[in-house]
Amino acid sequence: MNVAEYIVKRLEELGVNDYFGLPSDYNFNILYTIKNNPNLKWIGCTNGLNAGYAADGYARIKGYGALVTAYGGGELSSINAIAASMAENVPVINIVGLPSTKYIKEDMQYNLRNVDYKTYMNTFSSVVAAFAFLEKDNAKQEIDRVLGIMIKEKKPVYLAIPSDIALLKIDDKYSNYDYASNKDVLNDAAQKIAEKIAKSKKPVIIGDVLIKRFDAEIEYKDFVMQSRIPVSNFLMGLNLIDMDYEKYIGGYFGKYRNPISQKYIEESDCLIAVGTIYNDINAFGFNLSKKINDGIAIYGNYTYIDGELYEDIKMSDLLEAITKLIPPKNIEIDKPNIGYKQRSADVVPLTTDYVYSRIQSFIKENDIVISDIGSITYGIAQMRFLESVDVQLQTIWGSIGWATPAALGASIAKPKSRVVLITGDGAHQVTGMEIGTMLRYGVKPIVIVMNNNGYATERLLSRDSKEDINDVISINYSKFARVFDGDVWSTKVSTSEDFDKALKVTQIMNKMCYIEVYTDALDTPLLTQDVVYSKKEKVDYKPQIETLQVNDVDIEEIIKTTPSSGFEYETIVHKGIAGNN
Amino acid sequence: MNVAEYIVKRLEELGVNDYFGLPSDYNFNILYTIKNNPNLKWIGCTNGLNAGYAADGYARIKGYGALVTAYGGGELSSINAIAASMAENVPVINIVGLPSTKYIKEDMQYNLRNVDYKTYMNTFSSVVAAFAFLEKDNAKQEIDRVLGIMIKEKKPVYLAIPSDIALLKIDDKYSNYDYASNKDVLNDAAQKIAEKIAKSKKPVIIGDVLIKRFDAEIEYKDFVMQSRIPVSNFLMGLNLIDMDYEKYIGGYFGKYRNPISQKYIEESDCLIAVGTIYNDINAFGFNLSKKINDGIAIYGNYTYIDGELYEDIKMSDLLEAITKLIPPKNIEIDKPNIGYKQRSADVVPLTTDYVYSRIQSFIKENDIVISDIGSITYGIAQMRFLESVDVQLQTIWGSIGWATPAALGASIAKPKSRVVLITGDGAHQVTGMEIGTMLRYGVKPIVIVMNNNGYATERLLSRDSKEDINDVISINYSKFARVFDGDVWSTKVSTSEDFDKALKVTQIMNKMCYIEVYTDALDTPLLTQDVVYSKKEKVDYKPQIETLQVNDVDIEEIIKTTPSSGFEYETIVHKGIAGNN
Repeated sequence: MNVAEYIVKRLEELGVNDYFGLPSDYNFNILYTIKNNPNLKWIGCTNGLNAGYAADGYARIKGYGALVTAYGGGELSSINAIAASMAENVPVINIVGLPSTKYIKEDMQYNLRNVDYKTYMNTFSSVVAAFAFLEKDNAKQEIDRVLGIMIKEKKPVYLAIPSDIALLKIDDKYSNYDYASNKDVLNDAAQKIAEKIAKSKKPVIIGDVLIKRFDAEIEYKDFVMQSRIPVSNFLMGLNLIDMDYEKYIGGYFGKYRNPISQKYIEESDCLIAVGTIYNDINAFGFNLSKKINDGIAIYGNYTYIDGELYEDIKMSDLLEAITKLIPPKNIEIDKPNIGYKQRSADVVPLTTDYVYSRIQSFIKENDIVISDIGSITYGIAQMRFLESVDVQLQTIWGSIGWATPAALGASIAKPKSRVVLITGDGAHQVTGMEIGTMLRYGVKPIVIVMNNNGYATERLLSRDSKEDINDVISINYSKFARVFDGDVWSTKVSTSEDFDKALKVTQIMNKMCYIEVYTDALDTPLLTQDVVYSKKEKVDYKPQIETLQVNDVDIEEIIKTTPSSGFEYETIVHKGIAGNN
Repeated sequence: MNVAEYIVKRLEELGVNDYFGLPSDYNFNILYTIKNNPNLKWIGCTNGLNAGYAADGYARIKGYGALVTAYGGGELSSINAIAASMAENVPVINIVGLPSTKYIKEDMQYNLRNVDYKTYMNTFSSVVAAFAFLEKDNAKQEIDRVLGIMIKEKKPVYLAIPSDIALLKIDDKYSNYDYASNKDVLNDAAQKIAEKIAKSKKPVIIGDVLIKRFDAEIEYKDFVMQSRIPVSNFLMGLNLIDMDYEKYIGGYFGKYRNPISQKYIEESDCLIAVGTIYNDINAFGFNLSKKINDGIAIYGNYTYIDGELYEDIKMSDLLEAITKLIPPKNIEIDKPNIGYKQRSADVVPLTTDYVYSRIQSFIKENDIVISDIGSITYGIAQMRFLESVDVQLQTIWGSIGWATPAALGASIAKPKSRVVLITGDGAHQVTGMEIGTMLRYGVKPIVIVMNNNGYATERLLSRDSKEDINDVISINYSKFARVFDGDVWSTKVSTSEDFDKALKVTQIMNKMCYIEVYTDALDTPLLTQDVVYSKKEKVDYKPQIETLQVNDVDIEEIIKTTPSSGFEYETIVHKGIAGNN
């Protein structure tokens, strides 16, 4: 077995069957290995950043993701995606192809510049948990070391592979990457936590995204349900617990729009933070009056109790151990109303308030919802979801444009789930080309592009919300979706009635559906405004209400492509398909 | 004067009137400073990579370029563009906005992760010549230091500016960034070089891109013309000397397609390399039998003579000094034929051979030609250009996609020149969104997208040229150009006759013209094939000839938008406009 074969075999054991990236003669030997293996699939992306985000989206759903890039321009084009995976604890391996060792060692002596082939690997050093430059004598050992760290820390890693080294025969003896909790530390920590909970009068749990990353969702749910302690979450921990659960007090929004959650957390005498990332957007500013690590703070491989660190304990092991030790607390709570109320569809023009309430009712069992960063984030934060829905956000790193390629990755990772992508115009112009990749590989998400003519959050934050620094290029998105070779239904809507109809049409389409939604440039969720205005003294919010003329649904196309039996598309047509009434 | 005002003032003195980037509340104070100054313009781009390439394209034409990004995701999205500027010696300043000092010093203490706000600056450390994190006590001094290095080395630099520091009042005393050659070293080096040239029987000059970067074009031309020594160039040094000049022996293509240049260089007893970068693509492989620095090798601020280094000499000073010392050598040469012969327009289907020969005759005085990397590079390499034409390539770094945003930057830098952008489909999908930015800011290049259904060079290099790893998404590019809000004429052509007509149409259009050119997937310039096959043992080149159906020129649109006086568009219409005959 050679180096490339060994790597893909070990990754296959971790559930990685799909590789994202761009081809280069530097990485051909890795690509050929992927293409030669019938269990694996190569997904060629339009650029390095998008490939990195797609691998990240895949990893969020399937556990691990793989990106294949090339030395220099290729790898550096992806570095922001890897930095995002690092910040958000997403285990993605960046497999970087390099020229052959001969070329590295000899030819470059001729080069004027003092080229060090490790320069760009070093550039990655602060955005990955481990990296290695594979050579003849270290290949097997370094692959095992780097994969071991990826698995333990659930963070991105980096392997530089000269093209000849990819074909180097190595010992393929199975190395065990598993690691176990230190039992003594585990028992000690569990005991201490159980005592603290038993003594407490007002315990409260905050769950967050690291629970997903460290595969502890089942143990977390058991702990929450059996302890019957009031439970909240930071933003990326949305929907870890059924929103109907009687002890769920809603998300923690800092000082905004959920006073119940804020009160329980602020007044708690025993804060139990599980897998939290205390960051600006994720925790709604730095409003918490207590330090998380001064209470009980359980992370992937370590835990803080009263500020004291306990190392080498897996989150899942610890949660399981605590659950066994504690009797139910069963504290009575004030249950807040969660989610948007249903709005009537006669609102003209379309408002974001209507859009988010309507999306809430549109999301169905087992959907994967992927939302970009920006004002949309706060629209999603207040939504009520069914328990089986998986909501994916990127609020720690917060790089606009992540969601579109991430939706490609998620769709490849879980082909049977419907993926609903919600992105803004400012974000979509960053990475929108990946719609073409989705169509190339037959992926069929529902794409909702919120077109409000600019960077809405920045607009609210700036000295003059109308200043053109926050404008973006104007794209006819519903036409944009049709410039690619592939099967897509697209439309644009500017009334609530049309938005309704467009969502209904998606249900009869066995293809990608792409809806461009026009709203006013300054119309953002109230929670967005709260957060923004708390950062800003001068407020100049005056929504400009204008009705936009936006109608281009292709009825013939709908009729032509709708299955002739089954769904009564005629009825819809008579009522007036989105944009044609 | 505050920090932001001081920086833009010093950059304005260097000719920087336009700033590329994306807005963020972290960089608002820099953007406001730009917007407040009537001499300056803000060009908002669609993403960080494209903004970086645009600033690079601007700097190549105007001398210096400026990019404004934001801490974290913003700056890292641009890093590949900055790395490219570094490799290609293009002076671009990356001005990075950060949260305020208060936030950096205090709030982040709450953060779980040990956030070091210098992490991403350190990521940039190996791809810039100088960097600084501005603080209260070092701002003026560090700005001066960093700008001084940018000016001396003509390389990118990096400034991290917390949002409050941007507004910090500083001493605005003028600092002189000029530097002078060391006169003793200069005289010594000039003397030694003059002696070597005088003694030589077969001297030859190789000019390259650093002559442009170090503003030594006039001194270089004087030296070449007055010495009358045979002259060649590496790829990026294309067109530094009038191709009609009797001592011009054509470009150095390694062992391929210009034996005259190869012979002169290989047989020379006095190689004079001026501003060369000896790199794989730029010098056509590492085929040179001699080491450049063992002869006379003149760089921006230093020179090698017989392997010995002479420091602190400006290229322009040294060239001027040598020119004064040497009498003309006036060596007789065999002048090669340069450029494509005119082809007849009856070739069906369209071949790249026809396309490049036709573009050659299309390029006019003072055009700026910007070509992406890939098989196109070799098509351009063999072209004959008028002396006033500026040809821009990115062959050292070689990151596909650079050319489109670079054409935006070049168009903004020199609005009176016509910019002709030639890119491939594989490259254009990386950065094509910037067409929208061009339209937003009323920039009107001629865009030629060579659509050959994939990565042609990689296709030739791979084990099976038809393998789908080298396919790309299929985009209807001529429609793509029309999804933006802006004035554009676009078409697609697949015959030489249509290509001819489309180029003629561009002459009556006072707007962006965008031509998608279909050629066979394996049809590449012969020089591309030479270079690729020399790297590869097995050759499987068998062009697949198919006629594509590609016709969608909008005649009404042409008639509607053509000025009613002046150009005889009617005649063209009668002959059949591209795509409608």
